[in-house]
Amino acid sequence: MLKITKPSLVLNEKICKQNIRRMHEKALRNNVDFRPHFKTHQSKVVGRWFRERGISKITVSSLEMATYFAEDDWNDITVAFPVNILEYELINLLAAKIDLNLVVESVQHVEALSKFIKSNVNLFIKIDTGYHRTGIASKHVAEIEKILKEIERYDKMNFYGFLDHAGHSYYAKSKADIHKIHKESIQELLALKKYFIGSFPNLKLSTGDTPSCSIAEDFTAVNEIRPGNFVFYDLTQVAISSCRVDQIAVAMACPIVAIHEDRNEIIIYGGAAHFSKDVLIDDLDGKSYGYLVESKGNTWGDIIPQAFLKKLSQEHGTIVAPMEYIKRKAIGDIVYILPVHSCMTALAMREYISTDAKIIDHL
Amino acid sequence: MLKITKPSLVLNEKICKQNIRRMHEKALRNNVDFRPHFKTHQSKVVGRWFRERGISKITVSSLEMATYFAEDDWNDITVAFPVNILEYELINLLAAKIDLNLVVESVQHVEALSKFIKSNVNLFIKIDTGYHRTGIASKHVAEIEKILKEIERYDKMNFYGFLDHAGHSYYAKSKADIHKIHKESIQELLALKKYFIGSFPNLKLSTGDTPSCSIAEDFTAVNEIRPGNFVFYDLTQVAISSCRVDQIAVAMACPIVAIHEDRNEIIIYGGAAHFSKDVLIDDLDGKSYGYLVESKGNTWGDIIPQAFLKKLSQEHGTIVAPMEYIKRKAIGDIVYILPVHSCMTALAMREYISTDAKIIDHL
Repeated sequence: MLKITKPSLVLNEKICKQNIRRMHEKALRNNVDFRPHFKTHQSKVVGRWFRERGISKITVSSLEMATYFAEDDWNDITVAFPVNILEYELINLLAAKIDLNLVVESVQHVEALSKFIKSNVNLFIKIDTGYHRTGIASKHVAEIEKILKEIERYDKMNFYGFLDHAGHSYYAKSKADIHKIHKESIQELLALKKYFIGSFPNLKLSTGDTPSCSIAEDFTAVNEIRPGNFVFYDLTQVAISSCRVDQIAVAMACPIVAIHEDRNEIIIYGGAAHFSKDVLIDDLDGKSYGYLVESKGNTWGDIIPQAFLKKLSQEHGTIVAPMEYIKRKAIGDIVYILPVHSCMTALAMREYISTDAKIIDHL
Repeated sequence: MLKITKPSLVLNEKICKQNIRRMHEKALRNNVDFRPHFKTHQSKVVGRWFRERGISKITVSSLEMATYFAEDDWNDITVAFPVNILEYELINLLAAKIDLNLVVESVQHVEALSKFIKSNVNLFIKIDTGYHRTGIASKHVAEIEKILKEIERYDKMNFYGFLDHAGHSYYAKSKADIHKIHKESIQELLALKKYFIGSFPNLKLSTGDTPSCSIAEDFTAVNEIRPGNFVFYDLTQVAISSCRVDQIAVAMACPIVAIHEDRNEIIIYGGAAHFSKDVLIDDLDGKSYGYLVESKGNTWGDIIPQAFLKKLSQEHGTIVAPMEYIKRKAIGDIVYILPVHSCMTALAMREYISTDAKIIDHL
């Protein structure tokens, strides 16, 4: 058994590697590049599990993350975030060392870059295909042309292609919803490609939220996919039908510190400081911060019906569970809980423990 | 001007020290011990600002935090959390070195402690005065007596007194609500004291959530107060009327990375990874993760009306603001944002920058 004494994020390497393999094989079947997003795991060790399969291109969401992975010899990195021009020193350091792909969405971004850039960078133009967080709507062709003209003015900048993130798939209610979002966003990207391919014969299309990449099968229209969360999955992905519960590769292990039988509650050491505060709204149980699973040797098994994390304060978690479950528990026992949003839980925990008791890094 | 290039938590030392002074003076006026909770700041440097005023007793919420502050020569520490018996090694290390005050709430806690404890520890019994997270209801006197009998069996354990946390004050809607919660919880503690003082003439009463300690004036009935959040305050405390906006001692400074005038939105580098996901429900604006304030030299000023953080993803924040404000902004500008829950934002950021550009530690 693992020696757990405080809240710990247990990583099941076998499940994780299966998730990586499955997505990689889908990319291979579609003949598209697999450029996984590393913001979920933020781990050099987990990154190497991708490298073992021959994957050499990655995505991150900050220059800090790009730096972390460049240290581990990743040398083709897309920072899928509107370029933060204030970090010009870091941009120049990275661009001198690796193939650095940045994201712009206005003429101002390109002008600002031109003032400091010293090495070659590739630029994606971010397209808003319906999520409405960042990017230019694909119909604003004149605006896109202006950006392309600005990029052409500078020797050090190479237009790489169009990139979208259909993040509205996270709010999908069914597989049909996800398919619809995927299809529409791909069509928007394809229309742009058709319009611009004459002037830019090498332009690439990059897409790939985890729900679409998990559910859809046909990616032949694009050049690369960039899913991230799939490496671990979580209860949010189960709820929107992009994975099964047994594909979730991480679980929190937390000590029981108090039991209140009178109200069917267990208090664990494990709060918002550890889980983060992403919440799942469940028709059956209402608000939940995680579902309890059976502990099973050094890993975990099935979901325990009606046992979930109902409240979180900074260090405390309040579990509601059936009385017969609570009666079998004592202070000092460990409970396993599947996270609602694995990216945020990993970020809060900042390290993993493998099921064979190795500590695994997180930025 | 501070050189901010990425999301940074700016700490205004002057406001912070005023918050410390005000609370300390209230404790002095009441002739009660001031045992501040350090879980909000988790900083040795900020801890020393308390020590400068002669404060020598502190509260934390984990043995890890106790260890961090014991390293900085704090030697009377209460871990205000049901004792986690799995960390027996850490408990023995700390108990050998400092005055360690632990919290129990059942006979099982005491029995478990008895099996490993090697040095003297003080034990508080946690009383549930209405928050219903942890503790024994004050009316369960027979249960409390059983715990006391169990404690008396062991030489190394000293019963210290009763401790409550009226955390339901965080859900107060007005000052009157807070006063009511404070009054009721104090009365419950006093009734227990009256009942047990004959057998335990030295028993102490410990209380002190930030809302009650900020609003109420009379603490003469208890022996010590343990507020924590007041050191920084935040928008949640403003909303429940326990502080003013100009008493908030921390603000996030974040770079603008994109501007979408067509929907009155600004995108900042600064997301759930930096702010955490605590949310404020405002009658006027709906859900908000922070309010924008004017930048003012190296610090910040007044709230900008109708400018707030509306959405957070991992690294992105979406600000909604009036058009005339957005028109004055450009990518690369820095915006200042007051946090909804300063404890969680500090925990996410794990360091501060002072208004005179010093890096300040966080566990």
